[in-house]
Amino acid sequence: MIMSRIEAPRDEATGNLVDRLLGGLPTEAVLTDPDVTASYANDMASFCPAGAPAVVVLPRTVEQVQHVMRTATELRVPVVPQGARTGLSGAANATDGCIVLSLTRMDRILEINPVDRIAVVEPGVVNATLSRAVNEHGLYYPPDPSSWEMCTIGGNIGTASGGLCCVKYGVTAEYVLGLDVVLADGRLMSTGRRTAKGVAGYDLTRLFVGSEGSLGIVVRAILALRPRPPEQLVLAAEFASGAAACEAVCRIMEGGHVPSLLELMDRTTVKAVNDLAHMGLPETTEALLLAAFDTADPAADLAALGALCEAAGATQVVPADDAAESELLLQARRLSLTALEAVKGTTMIDDVCVPRSRLGEMLEGTERIAEKYQLTIGVVAHAGDGNTHPTVCFDAQDPDESRRARESFDEIMALGLELGGTITGEHGVGVLKKEWLAREIGPVGVEMQRAIKAAFDPLGLLNPGKLF
Amino acid sequence: MIMSRIEAPRDEATGNLVDRLLGGLPTEAVLTDPDVTASYANDMASFCPAGAPAVVVLPRTVEQVQHVMRTATELRVPVVPQGARTGLSGAANATDGCIVLSLTRMDRILEINPVDRIAVVEPGVVNATLSRAVNEHGLYYPPDPSSWEMCTIGGNIGTASGGLCCVKYGVTAEYVLGLDVVLADGRLMSTGRRTAKGVAGYDLTRLFVGSEGSLGIVVRAILALRPRPPEQLVLAAEFASGAAACEAVCRIMEGGHVPSLLELMDRTTVKAVNDLAHMGLPETTEALLLAAFDTADPAADLAALGALCEAAGATQVVPADDAAESELLLQARRLSLTALEAVKGTTMIDDVCVPRSRLGEMLEGTERIAEKYQLTIGVVAHAGDGNTHPTVCFDAQDPDESRRARESFDEIMALGLELGGTITGEHGVGVLKKEWLAREIGPVGVEMQRAIKAAFDPLGLLNPGKLF
Repeated sequence: MIMSRIEAPRDEATGNLVDRLLGGLPTEAVLTDPDVTASYANDMASFCPAGAPAVVVLPRTVEQVQHVMRTATELRVPVVPQGARTGLSGAANATDGCIVLSLTRMDRILEINPVDRIAVVEPGVVNATLSRAVNEHGLYYPPDPSSWEMCTIGGNIGTASGGLCCVKYGVTAEYVLGLDVVLADGRLMSTGRRTAKGVAGYDLTRLFVGSEGSLGIVVRAILALRPRPPEQLVLAAEFASGAAACEAVCRIMEGGHVPSLLELMDRTTVKAVNDLAHMGLPETTEALLLAAFDTADPAADLAALGALCEAAGATQVVPADDAAESELLLQARRLSLTALEAVKGTTMIDDVCVPRSRLGEMLEGTERIAEKYQLTIGVVAHAGDGNTHPTVCFDAQDPDESRRARESFDEIMALGLELGGTITGEHGVGVLKKEWLAREIGPVGVEMQRAIKAAFDPLGLLNPGKLF
Repeated sequence: MIMSRIEAPRDEATGNLVDRLLGGLPTEAVLTDPDVTASYANDMASFCPAGAPAVVVLPRTVEQVQHVMRTATELRVPVVPQGARTGLSGAANATDGCIVLSLTRMDRILEINPVDRIAVVEPGVVNATLSRAVNEHGLYYPPDPSSWEMCTIGGNIGTASGGLCCVKYGVTAEYVLGLDVVLADGRLMSTGRRTAKGVAGYDLTRLFVGSEGSLGIVVRAILALRPRPPEQLVLAAEFASGAAACEAVCRIMEGGHVPSLLELMDRTTVKAVNDLAHMGLPETTEALLLAAFDTADPAADLAALGALCEAAGATQVVPADDAAESELLLQARRLSLTALEAVKGTTMIDDVCVPRSRLGEMLEGTERIAEKYQLTIGVVAHAGDGNTHPTVCFDAQDPDESRRARESFDEIMALGLELGGTITGEHGVGVLKKEWLAREIGPVGVEMQRAIKAAFDPLGLLNPGKLF
């Protein structure tokens, strides 16, 4: 992991920077206490170096963001945009001497329109806040990353985040219709539209989704909504092998089913969840599949899906009786990463997505890697998408174990690429995987991506050292 | 309409160009007969100037496309990529002395995978051919432009085309997972993935969708498929005013319904269809709404939707009894543009998309414009998307009427922008609307779009004079 270190500015330079920032921001929006600014240095990724910010700014208006970017451009100071810092790839990590631009105070929902099925929001709105607000209008904002109670829409846009819903409803990218973006030089650009369709020029909106704050600062988003679906009903299916569970996934998808959720937890994960929360999940099983439907007749749909699970070798198929039981099963799934973290104190969470027909090979290969490195690696997966989160559990105080953790983490990405997959399904590249990005997209791809970066940010001030 | 004219190369230059092209292409793939090449000059748009191609090439392989682009770059000859030339904005029109690069012979379906729900295709595959092929595997490729029996997937990607399905299934962009692209200098770049999800780097795939051949040549596409839905059942609702029909559309969408189709035909269109095909549609109505569901119980869903239509003032609501009756109603809709063309011999088809809550104002305003210019303007609309196709009928032999047609066409776009809409929902910008693109996206947007163009095509050889 090489990270471009930017030399920390001298105090005088920082003083000048702060003075200039205060020319367009209220005092309470400019944080300079090193203890405070240090607390903004990291997101939630392991193994990602972070520098010391010169200053943290917390603007409330578009004009204030423009002022920050104009100041940064004039003084040639790098800017690291941040949401709630729940990211898992170091994409929000500070660099030495940077301005941390936290968008968390721009947290207004500006509009919810049930006829046009859109919401207009500021970037700092928390995902769960938006979800609940649109629910009240009979609407649904699908993207639901595990961190949905904390993470912001701006962060979700920056990393193009996914969640449990994607197997039916797709990822964040599919819900972003238009953006207001403050460019590196402080100019404001609008992309996209508030209409259901539109093809006027290049799709800059989608270019920004997943760009990890490296092309501009999203200050407003027009989001597409769906009608709120019926409550989903969940089924749990136990399998005596990961291979059998993956076979079931293939049969379900090949059979034309559209579950609203299709998740997999391996035995390591199930055990970790039981250890943490005493949920009484079946530990004798090698793989637990959770499936759900939010259709008009979910019980009937689950019955058909359950039959496919049995045909693929499920040892037990248990549909939930009601919404409450469904919610309990989902809680177990949502606790997975926290539970795996408790195993050894620290985790590295891979995010490899493979064609779902290769899911079985991915699971098998991950098991091999865990054995090779003598590590506990729990696998939770958005199985319906082929998106696996092999989670390496390790003791960060143990240098040798830490080294093995990092190596196994990388080997899992190599396996994903071998199987025709991608190094990241929904967590992004950040600092953690930037060497791997080049391996995935190749030299021509990298060159064209850099050319786009240069077109938007010729001085290289926006989130330097990320992605490439 | 100003179009950059490129001076026709001298015969010697053309001779040299053809010789160089023949160095990497079989003779039958290089057309030079002026009568033949002239037949490749235009797509289906009116009022779009077109030049005389120097040569038309019809490669069958990626390597041949690379050879064409390398030759073009060496000799600085512009290249105009083409599919079936069914486009409606002049985006495929030749420029003087250009190489027309027709992708129609690269028409193989390389893979259909029901577990991964993807198809891998060459750009020249006809939309209907792909649709039928995936149907046989129980799968569904939703994008269904009116020209689906002729248009190619490559053309669909170039214009990000839509269709009747979009109200439920979205546009082409949502079905393109990955691309192989030959760049202006002949290098091959792969974008995207064959997985359900992926966020490795900037979304170049989506950048190419809708780029009208101005950034590179798509030579292979990985497309997402859905399970084939049940056959849809259609309902027709008659309204005594366009406003009432639009009110029904708003109530339907606000009510959380997800029809698989929600189309509007105004009286002018209904009459034109009857005149052409004697379909016996109700001519006393001011607006006809067609709605469909492809759900498990379409009759029940149509009944609920029909009740909303009645509440909004429908004078008659007639659900189809079966698939055959449904198909008849859809045929009427699909004949609309042909029927309107028969009114005066020529049409200009607008493609303004407005927030669906503004659809009523759009219809009303279009009527006002028709009166002002003393023209027949029939409106068909993907009403559920707010995507209207006001179709100006005129006699191209009458210079005054032609002038009025063009002016009314532009005034309709101005109205769309006023209502918070876009100048193009699914047909693209091409030559026809390039001055309007700047009006819609503003100077900063244009500057950034040009910067992207320059990054991919520094010599400006790819489809010059389009978009900007």
